[in-house]
Amino acid sequence: MENISRFGVSIESKLLKKFDIHIKKEGYSNRSEALRDLIRKDLIIEQQKDPNEESIGTLTMIYDHHTGNLTNKLLDIQHDHNAEILTTTHVHIDHHNCLEVIVLKGKTGNIQRLADTIRSLKGIKHGELVLTTSTI
Amino acid sequence: MENISRFGVSIESKLLKKFDIHIKKEGYSNRSEALRDLIRKDLIIEQQKDPNEESIGTLTMIYDHHTGNLTNKLLDIQHDHNAEILTTTHVHIDHHNCLEVIVLKGKTGNIQRLADTIRSLKGIKHGELVLTTSTI
Amino acid sequence: MENISRFGVSIESKLLKKFDIHIKKEGYSNRSEALRDLIRKDLIIEQQKDPNEESIGTLTMIYDHHTGNLTNKLLDIQHDHNAEILTTTHVHIDHHNCLEVIVLKGKTGNIQRLADTIRSLKGIKHGELVLTTSTI
Amino acid sequence: MENISRFGVSIESKLLKKFDIHIKKEGYSNRSEALRDLIRKDLIIEQQKDPNEESIGTLTMIYDHHTGNLTNKLLDIQHDHNAEILTTTHVHIDHHNCLEVIVLKGKTGNIQRLADTIRSLKGIKHGELVLTTSTI
Repeated sequence: MENISRFGVSIESKLLKKFDIHIKKEGYSNRSEALRDLIRKDLIIEQQKDPNEESIGTLTMIYDHHTGNLTNKLLDIQHDHNAEILTTTHVHIDHHNCLEVIVLKGKTGNIQRLADTIRSLKGIKHGELVLTTSTI
Repeated sequence: MENISRFGVSIESKLLKKFDIHIKKEGYSNRSEALRDLIRKDLIIEQQKDPNEESIGTLTMIYDHHTGNLTNKLLDIQHDHNAEILTTTHVHIDHHNCLEVIVLKGKTGNIQRLADTIRSLKGIKHGELVLTTSTI
Repeated sequence: MENISRFGVSIESKLLKKFDIHIKKEGYSNRSEALRDLIRKDLIIEQQKDPNEESIGTLTMIYDHHTGNLTNKLLDIQHDHNAEILTTTHVHIDHHNCLEVIVLKGKTGNIQRLADTIRSLKGIKHGELVLTTSTI
Repeated sequence: MENISRFGVSIESKLLKKFDIHIKKEGYSNRSEALRDLIRKDLIIEQQKDPNEESIGTLTMIYDHHTGNLTNKLLDIQHDHNAEILTTTHVHIDHHNCLEVIVLKGKTGNIQRLADTIRSLKGIKHGELVLTTSTI
């Protein structure tokens, strides 16, 4: 069981009303839940600035599977980087295009370098990295 | 076989030199590959602004698996939204935390609404949506 | 005098501790102030998605003042767009380069279109738009 | 006079066609101009990751001018930071709200710290930092 704290927030009534409407629209059932998410997001953005922090990353990419042997290249690339690939999800989008999501673990700097290297491979049309963490 | 076009670019020599160093560091083997990636990224950013465009999204989220029955909730949520969940990848991070990546397909606006609804569920600590496309 | 509301937030003690350290480092003197800023930022991001909302924008750009007559072009451009230019700040950076910040007012969609048009002028090396609002 | 280089790009015809439509809509008169802007933007994003690089920043902020003596606080703050404030633009938005744009110069890390400190002052409702450079 985690320890829960409670504290008070003072805020302009007009601003609070707008926030309540906004989070209801997004699907939140209460303010604390919405505020905890804002706080975690803020901390994660801060944490990502430090290349030596441990992170988890997901690299979403679109590629043409007729181009080269990506799987083999990915294996080669891993040997040159210190970020670990935990798992890969593959979705067949159409005759030419695949979506692949690679889950990476390691220091933020190493994850970013590995993502750069993968993204720059011939055949990868678009690659976008998301960094997150389980420590928050 | 796709049709390939070729065109010329004029650019300040100093700027080109910096770009060559930058893309080499990122791992690109030639300028055309790097420029095609920049062009596609630019087009995807533009395309995402239109909620009626067809997109593919990946929602990366961290959650505490001791909280509620997320799988059932996800099924319920899908019935209320018009974006489709193609696949879900689950990674056990530690005793409490799971990473889950959901691949979504549909109109950009619907994907964003579905991502908002999932992100706002109790127990989801962090959720980040990436939008991409196979049409570029 | 604005009406002030007060409400309670429940949060994991560990997360609150991290947040306290983070906002102290950023310079906040209390949690309410930091949370109000997070709430406003969240609302502004949401508001920017609607091209019909009234916004204020600042376009930061770097350009080589030896290129063309930008001031005249800006006047021409304004006639074709429905966003208003409130003021322009000019800073001499070095022999070639100027920094200019244009403050724009109008519907978000019109501000973005006007910023695109200015950014794409020959001589503008980099342009970045910030959208904000006084209604929050 | 700057030295100009010329090089060839090969690209899928379908992708080039989409790019041409996109940049025409944005207002570009030719591809080279649009590509140079994409290249500079890419380099600036890279450069911003290094806190020791020299940058120019603009901090856009909205505040209620009835709150405290911001001008004096800004002077105090400058003494504790090594980023320089080049100029400040002030726009009266309505009875309560002012828009202020501060142009900053110095190492990226120092600019970011100074922006954090200003943003966290009581009365500042929203602050957004843009980083750019004249060296590209």
